[in-house]
This record gives sequence, C-alpha cells and structure tokens, in this order.
Amino acid sequence: MGRASKREEVAQAAFRQFHARGFNATGISDITTAAGVPKGSFYNHFASKDESALEALRRYGESLRFEMLTAPGRPPLERLRAHFAFLGRDTVENGFVRGCLVGNFGAEVADHNEQIRDAVKDGFDQWAARIRQVLAEAQDAGDLNDALDPDATALFILSAWEGALIAARADKSAAPVDAFFRTVFDVLLH
Amino acid sequence: MGRASKREEVAQAAFRQFHARGFNATGISDITTAAGVPKGSFYNHFASKDESALEALRRYGESLRFEMLTAPGRPPLERLRAHFAFLGRDTVENGFVRGCLVGNFGAEVADHNEQIRDAVKDGFDQWAARIRQVLAEAQDAGDLNDALDPDATALFILSAWEGALIAARADKSAAPVDAFFRTVFDVLLH
Repeated sequence: MGRASKREEVAQAAFRQFHARGFNATGISDITTAAGVPKGSFYNHFASKDESALEALRRYGESLRFEMLTAPGRPPLERLRAHFAFLGRDTVENGFVRGCLVGNFGAEVADHNEQIRDAVKDGFDQWAARIRQVLAEAQDAGDLNDALDPDATALFILSAWEGALIAARADKSAAPVDAFFRTVFDVLLH
Repeated sequence: MGRASKREEVAQAAFRQFHARGFNATGISDITTAAGVPKGSFYNHFASKDESALEALRRYGESLRFEMLTAPGRPPLERLRAHFAFLGRDTVENGFVRGCLVGNFGAEVADHNEQIRDAVKDGFDQWAARIRQVLAEAQDAGDLNDALDPDATALFILSAWEGALIAARADKSAAPVDAFFRTVFDVLLH
C-alpha cells in the first residue's frame, strides 16, 4: 500500500508538472519535489521520464470525461457541445494556461520521441473517433448534413480545438474558444 | 560587414534550431555550433536566448509569404487557399516535422515568458487580421455568405491550421491537413 500510494503521488505530480511546464522544462527533481519524495525514488516507480510522460498522457485522457459524448438521452450535437464546453470551462477557470497535454506533447515532443509521438497519435485518433461517432449519430438522426464527411470533420474539429487552446493561451482570452464554438456549432454543424 | 554577416548566421541558426527542436531543448551551444561560431560570441549579437527567439519569430513571419494573400488578379478565397497550400506543401515536403513556430512557442513558452507570449499573440493577431481581410473581400465580392463573422471565422481558421499541423506531426501524414482544406474550403467557406 505504501509503495502504491507513493507511485500514485509521483505519477500525479508528473502529470501536473508536464501539463504546467511542458516536457523539456520538467526535470525529474521538479516531479519528486512536487510529490514530496526523494529524487532518487522516482526510479522506484518509473523506468524513465518518458515512461512517466506516457502515464501523464493516460491520466490526461481520463480527465477529458469522454463519457459525456455518449451520455444517453441527449441529442448527439448537444453532447458534442457539452464536451467542448466542459473543456473550455477548464481553460477559462485556469486563466488560459496549460492547454491540452496531447497537443502540447504533439507540438513539443512528437518530432523527437517516437514513443511519445505514438501515444499522442493514439490520443488524437481515439478522440477523433469518438467525435466521428457523435457526428455519424447526428447524421443518422437527421440533425446534420449528410454531405459532411464524418472522418474529416471530426479530425478537423479536434485540430481546431487544439489550435484554439494555443491561441487562447497566447491571447489570455476566451476569444479563440468563443470563435471555435461559434464557427463549429453555429456554422459548420448547423 | 564581418559582424553583420556573423549576426545573420547566428540569427538564422537560432531560427532553424528553435523551429526544429523547440525553445527549451535549444541551448545557446546548439545555436553557435550550428552557426559555426564560438559559444561566447552569441552574446555579441543577442542579449539573451529570449531575444534570439523573438528574432526567430520575426524571421518565421517573413517566411510565410503573406503577400500571397493580397496578390492582385486572383479571387480572395483562391488567394486564401493558395496561402495555406503553400504552407501545407512545406510541411509535407519536410516529412511532417517542425510545424508552425508561432504555434510551437504558443504551446511551449507562452505560459512562462511574457515577452514571447506577447510576440506569439502579435503573430496570431496579425495573421488573423490578414485572413479576416481576405474573408471580408470575399463577402464584398459576393463569394462568401454575409452571415459569417469575418473576425471569428478568421481566428477559427488560423486555430484550425495550427491544430492541423500538430496533428499532422503526430500522425506523420497529410490527413489532418487534407481535412483542413476539405472542411474549410469545401464546407465552411463554400
């Protein structure tokens, strides 16, 4: 139990540090200091910084509440809007920092680390597949133009979300997130 | 002339290193080694790594060939497509690496460095304003639905582009860039 909870603390600290600082700016000692454990103990729990970054990506994925996309009793496009509204609220409430860990690692690390690139790719693929499923349901329900290609549109919406978070961090304002909602839900999927 | 050309070499090397490696993974010695100058000579040309990063952002902006957006004799939306087609070709030909320096610094550095955040914000603002101008011209020419808000749409298109480049780097494929063209030009602006 002692070891398991220590690993949990180190994993959680790694997730927070990678999300707040980025991959390269996060040292092992940042993680162990944040977790309140000796620096050397990091390697009792993770074989490498890379391995803790992969675990951070898994934890980030779990924080995205994808179950909102499949919640019963709600029209598909309302579920999609609620999903991004939840993510958008997080960004606004945190003062427009940190963004999306998948996108951050994609921008900073994917070119240089094949294992992390694979995990980022998987993260995007699974996310886009979930969005695609909602769009296909909306088409089946007659709520969305059948001429839209669900695969391309899902990938596009996810890209637009990733970019909107980066622009919001630069602008320290919700304007890019507002432009996302306005264009995706009032124009593209209207 | 000696000093001016050395500064040019150091500035160009800094631009290339920041674009290829990112901000935090680029050390002064990476820049001076790439430029073929002694490490200590960096500070003859730049007061700090930050200052060379700001210069890199300026150089990146100049490489985007914004004049394509105002080229006479071409319909506005064709100019917009040509602009992104030029940028997309660059990404495909380079094997889906590096992405956009403005977006990269936005994702990696903006939260932690106010000067670089300002420069990223300016970069996005100026880019979005140029796209906005093209959209307004298309509306004036009757080529684009007047109901689209040019400000929000421009900001959205730029965000979508930034995200598409990150997804293309993760996927090592043109699929996210193709989805961008298909959705922006065949659906959103159609």
